[in-house]
Amino acid sequence: MSEKSLTIDELETPAVIVDLDVLEANIARMSDYARRHALRLRPHTKTHKVPAIAQMQIASGSHGITVAKSGEAEVMASAGLDNILLAYPIFGEKKLGRLANLALEKKITIAIDGAVTAEAISQAAHSAGSTINMLVELDVGMRRCGVASAEEAERLAKAVDQLPGVRFAGFNLYPGHIWAPPAEQMAPLREVSAKLAEVLEKFSRSGLECEIVSGGSTPTALQSHFIAGLTEIRPGTYVLNDCNTLGVGACSLADCALRVIVTVVSNAVPGRAIVDGGTKTFSSDRLLSGNREGFGHVTEYPDILFEGMSEEHGHLNISETAHQPAVGERLSIVPNHVCACVNLHDRIWYHRNGVVEGAWQVAGRGRVV
Amino acid sequence: MSEKSLTIDELETPAVIVDLDVLEANIARMSDYARRHALRLRPHTKTHKVPAIAQMQIASGSHGITVAKSGEAEVMASAGLDNILLAYPIFGEKKLGRLANLALEKKITIAIDGAVTAEAISQAAHSAGSTINMLVELDVGMRRCGVASAEEAERLAKAVDQLPGVRFAGFNLYPGHIWAPPAEQMAPLREVSAKLAEVLEKFSRSGLECEIVSGGSTPTALQSHFIAGLTEIRPGTYVLNDCNTLGVGACSLADCALRVIVTVVSNAVPGRAIVDGGTKTFSSDRLLSGNREGFGHVTEYPDILFEGMSEEHGHLNISETAHQPAVGERLSIVPNHVCACVNLHDRIWYHRNGVVEGAWQVAGRGRVV
Repeated sequence: MSEKSLTIDELETPAVIVDLDVLEANIARMSDYARRHALRLRPHTKTHKVPAIAQMQIASGSHGITVAKSGEAEVMASAGLDNILLAYPIFGEKKLGRLANLALEKKITIAIDGAVTAEAISQAAHSAGSTINMLVELDVGMRRCGVASAEEAERLAKAVDQLPGVRFAGFNLYPGHIWAPPAEQMAPLREVSAKLAEVLEKFSRSGLECEIVSGGSTPTALQSHFIAGLTEIRPGTYVLNDCNTLGVGACSLADCALRVIVTVVSNAVPGRAIVDGGTKTFSSDRLLSGNREGFGHVTEYPDILFEGMSEEHGHLNISETAHQPAVGERLSIVPNHVCACVNLHDRIWYHRNGVVEGAWQVAGRGRVV
Repeated sequence: MSEKSLTIDELETPAVIVDLDVLEANIARMSDYARRHALRLRPHTKTHKVPAIAQMQIASGSHGITVAKSGEAEVMASAGLDNILLAYPIFGEKKLGRLANLALEKKITIAIDGAVTAEAISQAAHSAGSTINMLVELDVGMRRCGVASAEEAERLAKAVDQLPGVRFAGFNLYPGHIWAPPAEQMAPLREVSAKLAEVLEKFSRSGLECEIVSGGSTPTALQSHFIAGLTEIRPGTYVLNDCNTLGVGACSLADCALRVIVTVVSNAVPGRAIVDGGTKTFSSDRLLSGNREGFGHVTEYPDILFEGMSEEHGHLNISETAHQPAVGERLSIVPNHVCACVNLHDRIWYHRNGVVEGAWQVAGRGRVV
């Protein structure tokens, strides 16, 4: 069989497939939005971990990329990507040494929220003879990382400004606590905006220049222009979408570019059909939006609830559905959380209208250090 | 730095480490139990996916191994392991073709619960000129896979008996619904035992020989001798253990061979410490036993609740603890579900008394097809 004639129906299951038409449309839509609102786009590549997709995002107008870990930065840099933001307070002598070396050739920026981390990064960059840009992480309500007050932000920025090997470049914020349909986002977005305004005002008085104010998550991405002062956004999931973004109203089912093809392997237990993908194929991430039920959307039979999982078994509830899947039947499922799903697989297939055009290695997969 | 002097304190985090002393003791304990009760041991290697650990299990007296997927069988076979049970109703022409070829050189057994699957396996083995052994899966209460009645079991076994390329070899059962402390297991185990007795009696009348009656899960493993008729057990998790087995009372903390070393990367938000491992390091599996709270056990400070996760962030609740971790501090955490955790990593380190002796590639990782 020649590669050309391979269709998604011939792939061994579970198979993770990406529809190129949908992927391209998703990339174009976010780029258009950013362009229209004079926001720069720096997509978070944790969603796909594939350099080729990052390059498509750059080709469509993104000015740089976002990663979480040093290993992800290395993978993307070695594939030719540049202007890399680590939206993560990297700590550890070896991994900061690796980043400092990378910064000799690439533009590296790290978001930090404490002086200890800033000093460690400074030391690494200074030793390597490179410069690392630094964003101060603001906590705008998620309570994960970030300083909470304008005073703390200023204190940290001024400390950074005194350190060798690093350069204060602005702010990083992540409204990851806003997990509601677009219409319900205005009130919490106004709070984010107010907090940011307070910080920016303080900085404008103190003369510290903020080149970058980086924000954005997929659920709030298309409302980013309501946060005054943002210069760029870092959505990740928009590129593929999943049940989480679907349930929050940030995309339609047709915008979900990634599906997992599975095969029914058992229907021996009444009311149940078992498919050949479980937590090691989909991840065990719960649905965080919509009705919060189930582990994925069965596109062919939306009334079939994907109600449970073991590691290699997906449990479908067919006790009250007209269709009773047969052993051997293939189904395609949109995962709850696409980033966690992709991270389980060494490769994902891409296709157009069902004809497989190739497979991407998930080069950034498992780069936890 | 020579490999010899590397200690676990020098590993970049997150680092998955296995204590060889504990691993060896866990392997020996289960082997001793099986020997004492004249049960054969066929450990499920999905827990570790490392051929070298499977070989340690064989060296300690296991007579074969268990896997879930064709790709896992291939990885283990290519490392020299034999007598491989696929405790999974494998379906699909290509993957059955691969198994049928493997069966030319290795003893391959598959657990099935339907005639369609039996016929597909028969066809694959017959085409390849090999023989695949078949176990009929009995549902003993979990309602995942398996036939429910002695009549169905007999009908399926007789159908298998007529097919070319395959050989009926007995039964497979998995008491995965029994998830209680040992003292509370007796009632459900008696139900399993009664169901099995009914099936075995029917088969003894019909003259179908049952060479293998395979059962066992880690929580129930050491009670397996109360299920009359079992010939072998297939526990997996016992080799490493985790918070699930700890919470169910099937091991002590000292028996948990695997820990994840993480570094505190942020304490900017009051009441919180963020460590550099989240769902992409631990998996998002919830705790299924004990108090069902949290995402891992912080060994150094058991009063610190590991209360939440993002993909790369572990959220520790330090709002009411005496110890307030500093940025840069290392902690070692026992994961909720060790199988899912290992499956996220390309390699795991092994050590004795903190001195790293090497790293295993998780060769079976991601072999979902």
